[in-house]
Amino acid sequence: MRELALIEQIRRDFGSAGSRAVALGIGDDCAILRPPAGTEVLVTTDFTLEGRHFRRDLHSPESVGHRCLARGLSDLAAMGATPMTAFLSLALPADLVTTAKGRGWIARFFRGLRSLAGRHDITLAGGDTAQSPADAILADIVLLGTAPRGRALRRSGAKPGDALYVTGALGGAAAELSSMLAHNVNPAKGSKAGEHPQTFPEPRVGVGQALLRRKLATACIDISDGISTDLAHLCRSSGVTAELEQAAIPLHPLASKLSPAAALSAALHGGEDYELLFAAPASVRMPRQLSGVPITRIGQFRHRQATRPLITLLEPDGSRATLEPQGWEHFSGR
Amino acid sequence: MRELALIEQIRRDFGSAGSRAVALGIGDDCAILRPPAGTEVLVTTDFTLEGRHFRRDLHSPESVGHRCLARGLSDLAAMGATPMTAFLSLALPADLVTTAKGRGWIARFFRGLRSLAGRHDITLAGGDTAQSPADAILADIVLLGTAPRGRALRRSGAKPGDALYVTGALGGAAAELSSMLAHNVNPAKGSKAGEHPQTFPEPRVGVGQALLRRKLATACIDISDGISTDLAHLCRSSGVTAELEQAAIPLHPLASKLSPAAALSAALHGGEDYELLFAAPASVRMPRQLSGVPITRIGQFRHRQATRPLITLLEPDGSRATLEPQGWEHFSGR
Repeated sequence: MRELALIEQIRRDFGSAGSRAVALGIGDDCAILRPPAGTEVLVTTDFTLEGRHFRRDLHSPESVGHRCLARGLSDLAAMGATPMTAFLSLALPADLVTTAKGRGWIARFFRGLRSLAGRHDITLAGGDTAQSPADAILADIVLLGTAPRGRALRRSGAKPGDALYVTGALGGAAAELSSMLAHNVNPAKGSKAGEHPQTFPEPRVGVGQALLRRKLATACIDISDGISTDLAHLCRSSGVTAELEQAAIPLHPLASKLSPAAALSAALHGGEDYELLFAAPASVRMPRQLSGVPITRIGQFRHRQATRPLITLLEPDGSRATLEPQGWEHFSGR
Repeated sequence: MRELALIEQIRRDFGSAGSRAVALGIGDDCAILRPPAGTEVLVTTDFTLEGRHFRRDLHSPESVGHRCLARGLSDLAAMGATPMTAFLSLALPADLVTTAKGRGWIARFFRGLRSLAGRHDITLAGGDTAQSPADAILADIVLLGTAPRGRALRRSGAKPGDALYVTGALGGAAAELSSMLAHNVNPAKGSKAGEHPQTFPEPRVGVGQALLRRKLATACIDISDGISTDLAHLCRSSGVTAELEQAAIPLHPLASKLSPAAALSAALHGGEDYELLFAAPASVRMPRQLSGVPITRIGQFRHRQATRPLITLLEPDGSRATLEPQGWEHFSGR
């Protein structure tokens, strides 16, 4: 199976279904998109590199395909965007293309990607393929979405006095990963949504769209790098500080099985939870759920002051601690 | 220099200059683009992987940065698009980030990329960074452009009877590469445009735009994989066959220095020339130059017939040969 055969297979598998905005998909020098009138176009790109973002012995091919797309969908969700289409660049070690086992891996990877894509009505409109220069699978995905012009949620709109909210539950991705590492298993996909926050995270696309449509949020970010890192990004972009109430943080059931200290660390710094963190005026009556996902108030924003840390953690005993960003950073050696 | 510091440096270097269409660049979950009214959006993605697309001992960092962007610009050129913005995903081996020599490489890479970007009035609006899982530099670039709605040049419009044209000259990229391999040198950038078709190819953005604006072409493709491969793509997409007149093929001066057989092979199969190949009705009076680039008629298109090869090469002695695609294919082991 050479490059053209692989592209042909991808084209057949994905077809051009779903996306009215894709006027021309795979098969020319460029894809042609026609975003609806009155919209702006949102673009995000995310690497999924073997050894950095997944391990072939730990993550099933379906999980890798799912996560590859979920990363980009979560970025669109954080802006309140409607997904339009995806582009996948995929570099494969030679044996994945030449052996039946390898081709099986590729087929399962695309099954995972296609399953999530189908649920969000998007298809692959293009990308690139290459032989990997190393024994590592390298993927880079581009997601494009649309939002009504001037309405996309940004990181920069939070105001002092705004309340701080989070979707779903935290720490699950890190907890599932530590369980996978401890037992060296590659869990089969469960049937319940949210059961596998590490291997099959659910990007909060519906929540982001609801926040935008109902004008509930002043700022939003996804928590792919851990709340301690991503809340700091939001605070810096908005020019505010945040108080995070530790007792209010919704723990994922998998995190709750850990020791209290490990659970807190997973929730604050674990990353990969793909939940949304957002700000809303204190006057807004926030629904308990949006798009079927629980919404929890976990703190508030305050003015920036020289003596005040960017993020203060209000501990259950009433004491206050400075929360330093300790989430995922690729070059930090973590 | 950690990930955030690298992103900060990129953001500073590129600023938000040039692109009125970029409403929000680096620094949020997504970039926000506002394509001009009445346009459609063109998207292309291209890997630039060390060991597959360049060698660090052969290509200067400036050349790698330049080529990275040139690949995508050439795809936009082939559709007649106006470049809007670029997204770069870059995975670097740890030592490129931790050592002064490595950081020097990165700075020179971005200098090469920025120089070409500046000439096409585009900037980087986002991307991703990661530590490479191998000792190889991995880049994936996304280019977005716009074209008047419904007007983008495609591969699929060539008609029997149309003339076949090519921009510039062929075989130069392969000829420069073989010279680099023979002398193991990394040539300094010359001052003349076109002097370094391998290391500093000039994407034909102006030509593509002129073809679109003046309605000169019925189909167009870039010759990044070699004319024997890319002309076959165009023929298949258009449902036609082609006759290529060997004597009419414009050879790059660097290719002319090779033996006649090697020169022909470089021109037909060498790839990486980043010229445009296009079809135009025989009735069109084609200018000798477009946007300062020579245009040469090198053949014509004919009806598809079961007994006729996809591409026929008309040799100087009047004989006819079947031209098989032998250009670049990543998984073919070439």
